[in-house]
Amino acid sequence: MRFIAETSSDGISEQLFTLGEIPGVLWTRENAAGTRPLILMGYGGGQHKKAPGVVARAHRFVAEGDFAVLAVDVPGHGDRPKDEEYDRIATENQARVEAGEDLAPLIADFQALVARQTVPEWRAALDAVQELEHVGAGPVGYWGVSLGCGLGVPFVAAEPRVHAAVLGLAGALASAEAAARITVPVQFLVQWDDERVPRAQSLALFDAFASAEKTLHANPGKHGDIPAFELDSTLRFFIRHLGR
Amino acid sequence: MRFIAETSSDGISEQLFTLGEIPGVLWTRENAAGTRPLILMGYGGGQHKKAPGVVARAHRFVAEGDFAVLAVDVPGHGDRPKDEEYDRIATENQARVEAGEDLAPLIADFQALVARQTVPEWRAALDAVQELEHVGAGPVGYWGVSLGCGLGVPFVAAEPRVHAAVLGLAGALASAEAAARITVPVQFLVQWDDERVPRAQSLALFDAFASAEKTLHANPGKHGDIPAFELDSTLRFFIRHLGR
Repeated sequence: MRFIAETSSDGISEQLFTLGEIPGVLWTRENAAGTRPLILMGYGGGQHKKAPGVVARAHRFVAEGDFAVLAVDVPGHGDRPKDEEYDRIATENQARVEAGEDLAPLIADFQALVARQTVPEWRAALDAVQELEHVGAGPVGYWGVSLGCGLGVPFVAAEPRVHAAVLGLAGALASAEAAARITVPVQFLVQWDDERVPRAQSLALFDAFASAEKTLHANPGKHGDIPAFELDSTLRFFIRHLGR
Repeated sequence: MRFIAETSSDGISEQLFTLGEIPGVLWTRENAAGTRPLILMGYGGGQHKKAPGVVARAHRFVAEGDFAVLAVDVPGHGDRPKDEEYDRIATENQARVEAGEDLAPLIADFQALVARQTVPEWRAALDAVQELEHVGAGPVGYWGVSLGCGLGVPFVAAEPRVHAAVLGLAGALASAEAAARITVPVQFLVQWDDERVPRAQSLALFDAFASAEKTLHANPGKHGDIPAFELDSTLRFFIRHLGR
């Protein structure tokens, strides 16, 4: 793990790092010392580890929950090089959609392929960050919707350090099998008029989680229109389950 | 409006009153003075204005939101006499169910009949309570699930003083028409394994609200199993929309 830059604003420290080929960012309270809960944040397709929504959530999580927050670039995103294999598959998928094939199963297969790479990468990132004195080996939360849910479900299913997860904007077709192995508390976000994920697919993914505590929050609007008050609710969910 | 008794515990004042034939109870912070938001609370069939769940919610709303909270007995419940007409209909409905008829439309018709009485009663109770110096004419919230939703939807649709409502555990068959006239923010509670309300009926009622801000919270479990953390969420919903 190699630190590249450290800046600080509004009492929040931001450390850029690389871990092998993976560029990442860690946010903590300025002058933080000692173990604290850690939230790993995924993001939607085409975004990156410092996309405005990621940064805004990270700042709230640090400022109001005193969490450490970690985001890393997934293959082909942010500061990572284009991935030729993934690009080739994406191009092929586009051609198959134009030839009349259903998009959903193609996305599901593609996310499953990428997750085989990101699950070990994210576990390695947790290992490295939890070695730091100002993070330590506390409980971990995961936040990710859309692609961040597609990659997050297999991650949360595989990683026992994750004690609570906020997921959503994704359907059962891609993720039901791994979801059935998740038993930690889940808050699941559904956009009622999602133009990308059929409502029945969303409800079926919520159904699939094996968690005794799972709560579905549905709001009107399209894929990108999660209302701001859900961030308040997310914060309280993590505070309830990760402590602080 | 005639006050019958006043007690006080944990800094919360409880005033029992009658308004004509309607027995009611008003909770406020002890020594409250001046206008404050008011929450009217409905309840499930067979309960009453001082059922443990009603009292527990009222205490939280007063202690943490400094709201005034009002509950009144609905016909045939609590301190009100048995209602012969309603009892006769209930007995007839029971016979029709035993003869193989579907229960849901019978409940829908019955709730619509009772609501024609409770909507004007509740409006009169608001009128009376808002005359009091320590309540005043502030914004009003409504909380009610199950029967409290069946009677609450036509009330919220009819009463412009209501600025926000928590509803749930009820279906579209009874309430969709009135729900389509509701435009204030709604938080709608669904029990995912509700043995009394089919899931599709619940989702269809959520769909029916005309509110620009409406949010569905679904949790696993049966009709009576709403998790405790939803009360925290309800409190924040009312604080957000009624002020305080």
